[in-house]
Formats: sequence, C-alpha cells, structure tokens
Amino acid sequence: MIYIIDILGTISFAISGVLVALSKRMDPFGVLIIASVTAIGGGTLRDVLVGNTPVTWMHNMTYVYVILATTIFSVVLRHKIDYLRTSLFLFDTIGIGLYTLVGIQVGMSHGLHPIICIALGTMTACFGGVIRDILCNEIPVIFRDEIYATACILGGISYFVLRKLPIEDDYVFMFSGLVVILIRLLAVRFKIKLPNLYKSEIVN
Amino acid sequence: MIYIIDILGTISFAISGVLVALSKRMDPFGVLIIASVTAIGGGTLRDVLVGNTPVTWMHNMTYVYVILATTIFSVVLRHKIDYLRTSLFLFDTIGIGLYTLVGIQVGMSHGLHPIICIALGTMTACFGGVIRDILCNEIPVIFRDEIYATACILGGISYFVLRKLPIEDDYVFMFSGLVVILIRLLAVRFKIKLPNLYKSEIVN
Amino acid sequence: MIYIIDILGTISFAISGVLVALSKRMDPFGVLIIASVTAIGGGTLRDVLVGNTPVTWMHNMTYVYVILATTIFSVVLRHKIDYLRTSLFLFDTIGIGLYTLVGIQVGMSHGLHPIICIALGTMTACFGGVIRDILCNEIPVIFRDEIYATACILGGISYFVLRKLPIEDDYVFMFSGLVVILIRLLAVRFKIKLPNLYKSEIVN
Repeated sequence: MIYIIDILGTISFAISGVLVALSKRMDPFGVLIIASVTAIGGGTLRDVLVGNTPVTWMHNMTYVYVILATTIFSVVLRHKIDYLRTSLFLFDTIGIGLYTLVGIQVGMSHGLHPIICIALGTMTACFGGVIRDILCNEIPVIFRDEIYATACILGGISYFVLRKLPIEDDYVFMFSGLVVILIRLLAVRFKIKLPNLYKSEIVN
Repeated sequence: MIYIIDILGTISFAISGVLVALSKRMDPFGVLIIASVTAIGGGTLRDVLVGNTPVTWMHNMTYVYVILATTIFSVVLRHKIDYLRTSLFLFDTIGIGLYTLVGIQVGMSHGLHPIICIALGTMTACFGGVIRDILCNEIPVIFRDEIYATACILGGISYFVLRKLPIEDDYVFMFSGLVVILIRLLAVRFKIKLPNLYKSEIVN
Repeated sequence: MIYIIDILGTISFAISGVLVALSKRMDPFGVLIIASVTAIGGGTLRDVLVGNTPVTWMHNMTYVYVILATTIFSVVLRHKIDYLRTSLFLFDTIGIGLYTLVGIQVGMSHGLHPIICIALGTMTACFGGVIRDILCNEIPVIFRDEIYATACILGGISYFVLRKLPIEDDYVFMFSGLVVILIRLLAVRFKIKLPNLYKSEIVN
C-alpha cells in the first residue's frame, strides 16, 4: 500500500516538475533534473535526516525508471498537458497528500515521536517543491500559498488521531491523505488564508 | 553545561527567526517553520555531515518544545519585542557564540581535527541564519555583515588555544563564547570590516 | 590515480571559487568559504547521500590544506589570474571532468547501479558550482550553460561503455574525463545548445 502511494506521488510530482521546467524553457536535461528533484527531493532530505543511506532511490531503480518514463511521457504530451494547466495544481496537491503519509511511515519505522513523524511527512511532501521553485527562480509555493504545509500538518495530525480509533490501516491512510488534499483544494477554492500576525510594518 | 548552552542558543535563534518571519508578514505556520529552521538548521547540517543521524532534534523533544514555546511567546509579545528591534541583533549574536561551542564539541567527540571542529562550529552557528535569510528572500547576513563567520572562527581558535592552558573547562567555554560575541559586537559598533581584495571591478 | 584526480579537481574548483568570490568583492574569509564550498560541495552532497560520513574532507586534511594553499596562492596572484579570465572557464571545465570520475568511483564502491553512479558523478561535478553561484547570487552556471551537466552525463556513459572493452583502467579514466572536458569545450566554442522544448510561452 505505502509502496503504491509512493510511486503515485513520484509520478504526480515528476509531472509537476516537468510543467514548471517547460514553462521556464529548459532544455531536455534541465527538464529531467527538475522532474527528478521535485519527485525525490523531499524523500531524499527525509532519508538523510533519519540516516537512511544510501537514500531510497539509490537502492530502488523503480523510482528512476518511473521518473524517466513520466518525464518522456509528459514532454511528448506537453501540448495536451498545457491545455490542462490547472492539472499542475492538481498533481502537486495529490503529490503532497501521498508523500505526507510516506514520510510519516518512515518516521514511525524509526520509532520517532509523532510530532517528528509529522515534521518528516511535511518535509517529504513540501521540500521537493521548494527545491524545484528555488532552482526555477520562483518564490517557493510553500510561501506563496499559505495552506500548503498547513494541509500536510493537519493531515498528519488526523493520521495519528485516526490510528487510535478501531479503523483498518488502509482506510486510515486513505482518509488522512484525503484530508491533506481536501484542505488544500478547499483553501485554494475559497481563498482561505492563515492570518498575518504583523500587518502594520512596511517591508523595505 | 554544553546542554544548557545549546538550549539557550536554540531560544536565541528561534526568537531571531520569529522576528524576521514576522517582518515578512508570514502566517503562523510560516513563522514556526522559519523559527525552527533558524534554531536547528545549523545543528542539522553539522549532524548530517558527521553522520550523527537521526539528527539531534529527532531524538530529543526538548528542542521541539523549546522552539514551540519560544515561538508562541515571541508571537504573543511581538509588539513588545518590536520596540526592541536591536534585540534581533543581540539574540543572533548570543546564538552564534553559543552554537559555535556546541559545534566544536560535536567535532571533538568524533575525534576530528581542530580545523574541522572550528568549521563545524562555524557551520552550526551560521547555517541556520543562512537558511532563514534564503527562505525569507534576503541576502544571507553572513555575506552582508562581514565579521559574522569571522567571529565564530576566531572564537573557535581561542577555544583551542585556551584548552592548552591550565584553565577549567567551563571557563574556557565561557571565555571562547564571549570572544565570538564581543568580536561581533565591537565589529558592528565600530563598523570594522575585513578589507576587500578586489575593489576595481564594477559589479553589474 | 583516483586520488590524484581528486586533488587536481579540488585545486581547479578552488581557483574557480576564488575568482567568482573576488569578482563579488568578498572579504578574505568570504573568499575562503566560497573556494571551499565550490571545491568540496559536490563531494559532500555525494557522501551524505550514500551515507559516507563523516564526509571525506573531515577525515583527510589534505583537502583542507590544498584549498587553503590554493586560496592564498590565487588571492596573491589575483591580478595575474584576472588577465586570464578565460582560465576560470578552463579550471571549471577540468574540475567537472575530474569530479565526474571521482563520483562514479564512489558509487561503484557502494555497489550502486550505473545510472545512479552517473547521477553521483554529475552531482559531484556540478553541485559545488551550484552552491557557489547561489551564494554569490548568480544564476547557477548549470542552468545558464546548457551543456554543463550533459557533458558529465555523457562522460559517465562513455566510462561504463569503455569499461566493457579490453582497455586498461587508467586509460578508461583518462578518456572518459577527456570526453567530459572536450564536450564542454566544443559546446562553448561552437555555441552548441540543447533545444528548448517549449518556445511559445512568455515567461512572466
């Protein structure tokens, strides 16, 4: 289950990387690098921080092949994907829902505290996109779109709450992932933002 | 001793992170992320480079609670803290003094060469602020304020010199930390800068 | 053999770091930091990702001394080096050729798949320059100059192809390194670029 989730997240994030890289007019290798970094950046940071080395994608060639295939597929179909530009947003959102759960699982398998697990899940979900945006010279989406990391954190909390209830593990997974995705979709749809704490100052 | 120093440094850096994040009008989670990254970024890099994983703050929830409490406290009292805007500078300075020593200790406990220990101390002290500034889209303070890393390096050197003398360990600690703090305070007060080596070229 | 290559790459990259830092009017410690990061940044990322910690330069003081000596030497002779500004390009190019091979070797010694080894080689070669450029507030050369990473990847592929032939290891090394260097030199000389895939959109 967790493995399928991981692959689906990889595909979602690789597509989102390809779309951003294409919009920046990168050449084929640039597109591949951005797709890879977006797809495996968050998991790589997570693995490095918990000491899970060589990091996951070095052992398991599936990730490499999935990213390569997704990149080629997205580049070939780029004009079709472009018409569905909102799909970038959707793929990104599905990606963070799935990756949050993967990160939490890794944290739990290392016996870490739930707060740390949620931090790892949020990192796994958000960090690939942060690197993608830094490399593409955009302000990271995590800072532009305020309910991004918040959705991951709330999904993570709901995971640990639901686990205490008599619900099957697979449903707990699915539901927590949906929490992340729905919170982000609703936040964007209804323009919900967290309040600024500091409105008075003029930023130089 | 080293543990108390570490907690004090964490508080100092978390406050400095909160102040910068608030001045950038971030929402509550953004403020928490910047406070955390500032407080634990340098130590995390140090731990990853020496292979001390899972990194310190994943084992020891004290850091997490200290950062959470400091963040809430600073946000609630933000209007008071704001009047003391120079306090940002002061907290940052105390932070680098304390963290330099923590980093040196970790290097020594891994049996590394004094030069490497000083590099680790400087990294521990400076890297959290570098990430804070990159994420807040400012030029890292380490490059704006030239006696920043230099103060850490000189404090580190004085630590290894003082250790050879017949002085108690606690005093060696305190004195080396003060060296870092004083050098930075004096440099800023008297506008001391290191010389540029290359004055003739116009930077585009 | 691999060790000599590594030291030569360290010197080449340290010089390239010094030249960029000087052109940004950095003070002596800033120059040293940029030289170090350029020279060991790629190898550090590689070591962290494969779990080779404490990272190489912490064990082996040779790197530290070589970087220190190269930095002092380059700073003293900066006016001479400046006349040869194209040398920056040349040193950078030799550096990526040598480091690609070092990265591939580390990957192979961990029993990783050739694709992963090539990725590690490319990372070792390119990442130091990426950090150098980010810290100096320039667009990373890897994105400005499109045949940069591509040269490393092609050199890596030629290494794995040549290994299958009945050629001595040292020649395989030399030849693959030359492939990287020649591809980049020719690409820059004849302004060869990879095609953009997405020319129609206006980037905001």
